[in-house]
Amino acid sequence: MVSAAERRARMALACVSEPGEPGLSALVSERGGLEVWDAVRRRQDSPVWSRRVAGLDLPAVEAATEAAGARFVVPGDPEWPAGLADLAGAEELSDRGGVPIGLWVRGAESLARLTQRSVAVVGSRAATSYGQGVAADLAAELCASGVSVLSGGAFGIDAAAHRGALAGSGSSRASGADGSGGAAVGTLAVMASGVDVVYPRGNAGLLEEVARRGLIVSEHPPGEHPTRIRFLGRNRLIAALSQACVVVEATARSGARNTAAWAQRCGRVVAAVPGSVHSAQSVTPHRLIATAEASLITSAADLLGLLAPLQTTLPPPPAHHQRRVMDGWDPLAVAVREVLPARGTLTAGEVSLRSRRELPDCLAALAWLEQEGQVECRTDGGWALMRP
Amino acid sequence: MVSAAERRARMALACVSEPGEPGLSALVSERGGLEVWDAVRRRQDSPVWSRRVAGLDLPAVEAATEAAGARFVVPGDPEWPAGLADLAGAEELSDRGGVPIGLWVRGAESLARLTQRSVAVVGSRAATSYGQGVAADLAAELCASGVSVLSGGAFGIDAAAHRGALAGSGSSRASGADGSGGAAVGTLAVMASGVDVVYPRGNAGLLEEVARRGLIVSEHPPGEHPTRIRFLGRNRLIAALSQACVVVEATARSGARNTAAWAQRCGRVVAAVPGSVHSAQSVTPHRLIATAEASLITSAADLLGLLAPLQTTLPPPPAHHQRRVMDGWDPLAVAVREVLPARGTLTAGEVSLRSRRELPDCLAALAWLEQEGQVECRTDGGWALMRP
Repeated sequence: MVSAAERRARMALACVSEPGEPGLSALVSERGGLEVWDAVRRRQDSPVWSRRVAGLDLPAVEAATEAAGARFVVPGDPEWPAGLADLAGAEELSDRGGVPIGLWVRGAESLARLTQRSVAVVGSRAATSYGQGVAADLAAELCASGVSVLSGGAFGIDAAAHRGALAGSGSSRASGADGSGGAAVGTLAVMASGVDVVYPRGNAGLLEEVARRGLIVSEHPPGEHPTRIRFLGRNRLIAALSQACVVVEATARSGARNTAAWAQRCGRVVAAVPGSVHSAQSVTPHRLIATAEASLITSAADLLGLLAPLQTTLPPPPAHHQRRVMDGWDPLAVAVREVLPARGTLTAGEVSLRSRRELPDCLAALAWLEQEGQVECRTDGGWALMRP
Repeated sequence: MVSAAERRARMALACVSEPGEPGLSALVSERGGLEVWDAVRRRQDSPVWSRRVAGLDLPAVEAATEAAGARFVVPGDPEWPAGLADLAGAEELSDRGGVPIGLWVRGAESLARLTQRSVAVVGSRAATSYGQGVAADLAAELCASGVSVLSGGAFGIDAAAHRGALAGSGSSRASGADGSGGAAVGTLAVMASGVDVVYPRGNAGLLEEVARRGLIVSEHPPGEHPTRIRFLGRNRLIAALSQACVVVEATARSGARNTAAWAQRCGRVVAAVPGSVHSAQSVTPHRLIATAEASLITSAADLLGLLAPLQTTLPPPPAHHQRRVMDGWDPLAVAVREVLPARGTLTAGEVSLRSRRELPDCLAALAWLEQEGQVECRTDGGWALMRP
């Protein structure tokens, strides 16, 4: 159980920081919200932090959260999704990274249950009617097959995916309303604004329906507005909260590429939908397929086929698993273990920087972890996690 | 130089046999046309062969060849394309296989020069306007880039590819008309009928233009009409005569899948063009891409990118190479070597069956070839060619 004090400390940290700062995320994961919030409050050397802390009215945020019909969910809560742990220590993309300190969640369903079997359907705002039709069909069929659909609540592919999911989840046999305690099915909008801020305004009706029948999720306190960097940080949540990411349509420079890259880093299935070779909106899907970064899918059945092997061979959710493994470890070893990325390697120097521990201590901890079969030193001198 | 008697013997064999019979092809490659034709003529035990031989009027075939403005090209001729050797011993697809005994060629250009840099552009007869547009653009750009385009002379994708190639080769800097002795550029129609039979009739004008500015090629004597089995045999020639095969549009059961499979068996680049997920004509391209049997391409530039590494790393044409390597070998070793497929393995028993040699002889030959570094015995007991 999470203490009320820890939850409040994490909410305070989420308010005064820009989400997706990997350093802060790692620090909070290691030391806990209370200790970090205490350190941040007492820190006098940074005018930026001092100003942010001074400007925080936590009771007002709590009231706004309640007024929005939302709650603040943190690691340790039953509805905290295990998949978010895959963001720990992951290499940063676009300077965003790390496990979220907490999430504002608006809607009745459990976040963990609704994302237990889920797919992100993403793409361009300026999608073609072809792309929107494919996204809606795909989302409807996924929901009808018992798979939730995540997207970003934007115009174009996002809106089509939410609409399709709302249409499809009505007919789902695995609907979340049955109270069975297993996976629930519906649609989630992961926002770059607060869960009460309707962005874009034109999707107001759609987002209300998503909140009523699914969930609206954000790292940002109520009232916050989206910025470019917040869209990038948000993309990593869409990727980590789902088991697969489908790019339906995206131009060469679309944000959907960023989401697909995050999905890849988190070890998720990445898929893309083909289209006309004349369409600028199919440039990114075609490129992802041609470079083998994504699998070509033409239907929900194709995607379910890609997910099927995972359902049977996946180990238990990594977060719980790691927590058990690390019980009784030296805190130094835990800190070093947690900064190592799920994929790729870090040098001992990078481990020292990210864990904020002295290099000799890190080398000692890495040696111990290697003996324990937790990490290995590659031929290039980089340290990597051993795969289970 | 090929003797006139050998050429006539091969022409006779091509007339009395159905092309693409792998057994006959291997036998002719090993023993030569003269010896095999002599054996066939004297064979009294087979009413089918006797009837075929009795019905042959070779002078009439020679006259028809000349009347069609065609010639009969055989292995050893300067214009015999080296790539056809990759059909030797290849596993049969649809009961067709083997190096052609000879080819009727209609048109002024050298077959070897025109196919030296060439791509097969194939697909459905009932193609969409999208597919025909892509095929024409692709073919035009390939020809403008100095790459010839092969297809099957049919309606739909084939016709669009030939038309595009004719349009594009007009502007090619590497036109075959310069007499430089290097590669020539143009379009080739490889037919399942005789080179003088216009099939389909609706493509009469197009095929005349192909004959005038490119080449029409067939395994069948003048006057012969296409059959289903001849289309399948023809597909292997389209695949083997080009360095890459692009499937533009094809339904789930299209013959283009057969051509792509042949290209794969011959070690050619296989590519496919994406399209709408709603189009039945894009089912086969999408399936080939999803199963990694084909690379996704959206333009001639993509395809040239796939071919570029081959241009610099390919060894000299295999046929000449093999011929030199095998000089001085025991005929038994040559026969065994020639039945081994370019890819995959054969058991010693299969080698014996295909080479028509006794099993102990084959085992001795395989052991010698293994010592010479020509073949290897895989862990499953199958024998495979060593890659150069």
